[in-house]
Amino acid sequence: MAAELPSRAKVRAGRRPGRPDTRALVLQAATAEFALKGFDRATLRSIAAAAGVDAALVHHYFGSKDDLLLAALEVPFDPREVIPELAEAGADGLGMRIAERFVSIWDTEEQRLPLVALIRTSFSSEAASAVLRDGLVRMILDPISAAIDSPDAALRAQFVASQLLGLAVARYVLRLEPLASTPAETVVAVVAATLQRYIDGKPD
Amino acid sequence: MAAELPSRAKVRAGRRPGRPDTRALVLQAATAEFALKGFDRATLRSIAAAAGVDAALVHHYFGSKDDLLLAALEVPFDPREVIPELAEAGADGLGMRIAERFVSIWDTEEQRLPLVALIRTSFSSEAASAVLRDGLVRMILDPISAAIDSPDAALRAQFVASQLLGLAVARYVLRLEPLASTPAETVVAVVAATLQRYIDGKPD
Repeated sequence: MAAELPSRAKVRAGRRPGRPDTRALVLQAATAEFALKGFDRATLRSIAAAAGVDAALVHHYFGSKDDLLLAALEVPFDPREVIPELAEAGADGLGMRIAERFVSIWDTEEQRLPLVALIRTSFSSEAASAVLRDGLVRMILDPISAAIDSPDAALRAQFVASQLLGLAVARYVLRLEPLASTPAETVVAVVAATLQRYIDGKPD
Repeated sequence: MAAELPSRAKVRAGRRPGRPDTRALVLQAATAEFALKGFDRATLRSIAAAAGVDAALVHHYFGSKDDLLLAALEVPFDPREVIPELAEAGADGLGMRIAERFVSIWDTEEQRLPLVALIRTSFSSEAASAVLRDGLVRMILDPISAAIDSPDAALRAQFVASQLLGLAVARYVLRLEPLASTPAETVVAVVAATLQRYIDGKPD
């Protein structure tokens, strides 16, 4: 792998690429840089510098800054694939498609555990919340908003987000009973209706 | 004040009552005991012992275990007064009454700041979440549930909670824009309709 890197010699001089601790080090540096500077002002270069590795190595392992953000937040699915797929058929039935996918992802243990951890971490401080907010808006809410044909699209998408975030908290983080053990189909039906009303901008 | 305490001498022998650090010490001990044992198994006696003060002093300063929980969580209003007042008129219009009160409390800065801190702290660990869950269920959800005439009342109240928790997170913790600066009346109207549908058990 390292043979393809333009700066192999430089990388070699520092930590060896491919070592597990290099990856962890870059992710740690990315988390800190995103929290310190915000997503927009953090760069692959500044993250590499903070990790003490070459920028080309960071690019090689993680790709784009969004890839790095998803890896740092340990998001167990790629919203850049999932969300546009849900949104491309437009606003009709979008509430149901989002509710089904959301509950199916969160009801799967291997995905729920890192997502619960993500919520725990992201709500813990102002800086961590800002990092989550940036990624949420850019990779999830913007594509949903784009599927809604209204000047209010951004606000409607955020009401959708509010119900989904609250479902995540109530069913998966706080695990309120009986909500936590209510069958997925019931939860999906109830929440999908709410999401669709927000998407359609129905007043009641 | 101390004259009314049965164990004045004992208290005197330790920390003086009324000192600010005694109060803080008791709250710290309460937080730790609730997290360690859960609300049900923690007692005023065990909290007093952990704080190194007399149980009568804890009772004198904080009253009941619920009072102590609200003080430890720094909840800036008393849900035991607010919620029954909203619920006593029954399920009709309950969604609007809850939405109005919720947004009015959270939109007030002196109440929002401790509530945001409460969310940040309570979601940070499993133990802290359990403490929040206990208080939420007992002091907020049970009285709401009691106003709903349905075998599904507890579940419906938890769907209400899910939308409110998500609104708190989206508008006040993550401060998504434009949601965070949308006028209270708009937010109340949109959310009240959702809450009422959950309360009424409307399928869509």
